[in-house]
Amino acid sequence: MSKYWSDIVSRLTPYTPGEQPKDKILLKLNTNENPYSPSSEVLDAIKLSTKASLRLYPDPESINLKEALANYHNLSKANIFIGNGSDEILAFIFQALLNKEAPVLFPDITYSFYPAYCSLYDIKYKRIPLDKKLNINLEDYLINNGGIIFPNPNAPTGIPKSVVDIENLLQLNQESVVVIDEAYVDFGTESAVKLINQYKNLVITQSFSKSRSLAGIRLGCAFANEDLIEALNRIKNSFNSYPIDRLAQVAGVKAIQDENYFNLTRIKIIEARKFLEKELLLIDFEVLSSGANFIFTRHKSKDAIIIFNKLREAGVLVRHFNEPERISQFLRITIGTMEDMQKLISILKAVL
Amino acid sequence: MSKYWSDIVSRLTPYTPGEQPKDKILLKLNTNENPYSPSSEVLDAIKLSTKASLRLYPDPESINLKEALANYHNLSKANIFIGNGSDEILAFIFQALLNKEAPVLFPDITYSFYPAYCSLYDIKYKRIPLDKKLNINLEDYLINNGGIIFPNPNAPTGIPKSVVDIENLLQLNQESVVVIDEAYVDFGTESAVKLINQYKNLVITQSFSKSRSLAGIRLGCAFANEDLIEALNRIKNSFNSYPIDRLAQVAGVKAIQDENYFNLTRIKIIEARKFLEKELLLIDFEVLSSGANFIFTRHKSKDAIIIFNKLREAGVLVRHFNEPERISQFLRITIGTMEDMQKLISILKAVL
Repeated sequence: MSKYWSDIVSRLTPYTPGEQPKDKILLKLNTNENPYSPSSEVLDAIKLSTKASLRLYPDPESINLKEALANYHNLSKANIFIGNGSDEILAFIFQALLNKEAPVLFPDITYSFYPAYCSLYDIKYKRIPLDKKLNINLEDYLINNGGIIFPNPNAPTGIPKSVVDIENLLQLNQESVVVIDEAYVDFGTESAVKLINQYKNLVITQSFSKSRSLAGIRLGCAFANEDLIEALNRIKNSFNSYPIDRLAQVAGVKAIQDENYFNLTRIKIIEARKFLEKELLLIDFEVLSSGANFIFTRHKSKDAIIIFNKLREAGVLVRHFNEPERISQFLRITIGTMEDMQKLISILKAVL
Repeated sequence: MSKYWSDIVSRLTPYTPGEQPKDKILLKLNTNENPYSPSSEVLDAIKLSTKASLRLYPDPESINLKEALANYHNLSKANIFIGNGSDEILAFIFQALLNKEAPVLFPDITYSFYPAYCSLYDIKYKRIPLDKKLNINLEDYLINNGGIIFPNPNAPTGIPKSVVDIENLLQLNQESVVVIDEAYVDFGTESAVKLINQYKNLVITQSFSKSRSLAGIRLGCAFANEDLIEALNRIKNSFNSYPIDRLAQVAGVKAIQDENYFNLTRIKIIEARKFLEKELLLIDFEVLSSGANFIFTRHKSKDAIIIFNKLREAGVLVRHFNEPERISQFLRITIGTMEDMQKLISILKAVL
């Protein structure tokens, strides 16, 4: 606290990311990173661009990357926004599109950065409880609101909503923006990108951190009607003209273009998730149905914090959330390679 | 305009960066980039880090880079903040430290992103006119204020203030934050970093884009008392936990450590500036005294826009500002290599 701080600084409740351990860890399964390297085409393209031209500013509009994404998703470049990770884009969305008179709505159990953005921009919000099975019930969102946002699949539960349900919500909620945070969509959840041209109030965010194996490079994108993209551009150009560096731009283009590698790795992860689910059930865990590269699970009799700590001692890092109390017995486990999951199961068996 | 926009979006006046031409340009002297490649140690370090570990999130605290900067400037890591370009840091500073009851003060002719930040965060500001010779007169800032910010050297004039003058201001203005934007400081202006431990209300921002030849990588830093750094961290952690990617972090460390290359290139640029100043005087230009990697100059009889356009036709890009009217006869010219400056002079002679 200091007399030099603006009022806003004191009121903030910053987001706490998962631990990035400095010491050696046997299995890092706590921040939903991809177990596979980025595509070799991505690595080669970065190396080729690591040259004298790094002295020059990057393209402030990331046009080549927008073009690659436009081709991939069958959209126009004007429907696309690029950010320094999807977290930056979500911040811009809260500031540009969710800061209204009525409260923005999001699930009570969801990505915990959403309330942090609300405190940053002084935005009113209302948490809508998940149902008893920890599902998002979209009928509960049909109330007065200044916008709706949820991840699909939801985090940390991993449970997906269908595009039919999302389209139904869009038809019944046309007066405010609906944001679908698709950070984990590529691991078996259906994307709503196909609805972008039909609904003027739909925004979809995606990340290169998970399914494109590029958490280390910071890259995200959003899709929406061009009026909404224009709002994000206005914020961006009042904040930082050149948010995406030259290497991230070429990495992003190649990551989108190398579709074979993308499909190969995400299918392997989906298979490893199915294996893990099956094995966990055998040792008395309950597992929520996941459309993500993680699962949310609780043991029928053993305490989550005890399991968490024993795994930590054995060199296995998973994620535990103290709050809210409803999920305090759950652990969120990132899906690694099949070998990672086999190791995890054998350590879990020893621990239990 | 769209009914889905927040009020803030409509009121914004985004910053317009200098043109990043898509076509081939003979001499690009419009955005103050460094004419020299980044250090080969920087390029090698980026290539070495371009590997499977890009699948993992970067260190959210950029500790290695803070350590390199702490050693270099003889500061503690707690005095250092790292951002995705110094523009991002300036945005955080406006939000965290300059958003007060009283207006923030900055020169009427200065970096035009400052009023854009004020519109983004709804901050009151007052422009303090430069004196007749386009100098910042710091006595004019000794009025009720919610903070003071100016670049040193100033942009686009290039004119530096002495550290004695800055210290005098700090002694007379202790109730609000004083921000010195040192984006161009390494080209012959004295840095105020040595005052960080003495003044609790001093913030200094620096950039890797200019003197470290890394405009393409997006990296900036700030130095201040740890209470002020804590305010910036709280904003950052409510906005984007991982703003600096893995490659930028290693690039930054090597750029700071390769001091020989840094000194070699900035001295060459200072020499090329002196050459350009001398030559311009010979062909009837007036040149403001510069402590930056650019000069601000006007011809005694020829119109600036005509010169600008003729240079553009000859493949030479410089920067012209229409506003305010007081500087509409000036051109801002980035300093390149000695050969670039010789080419420029011979083209200018032909053009005039």
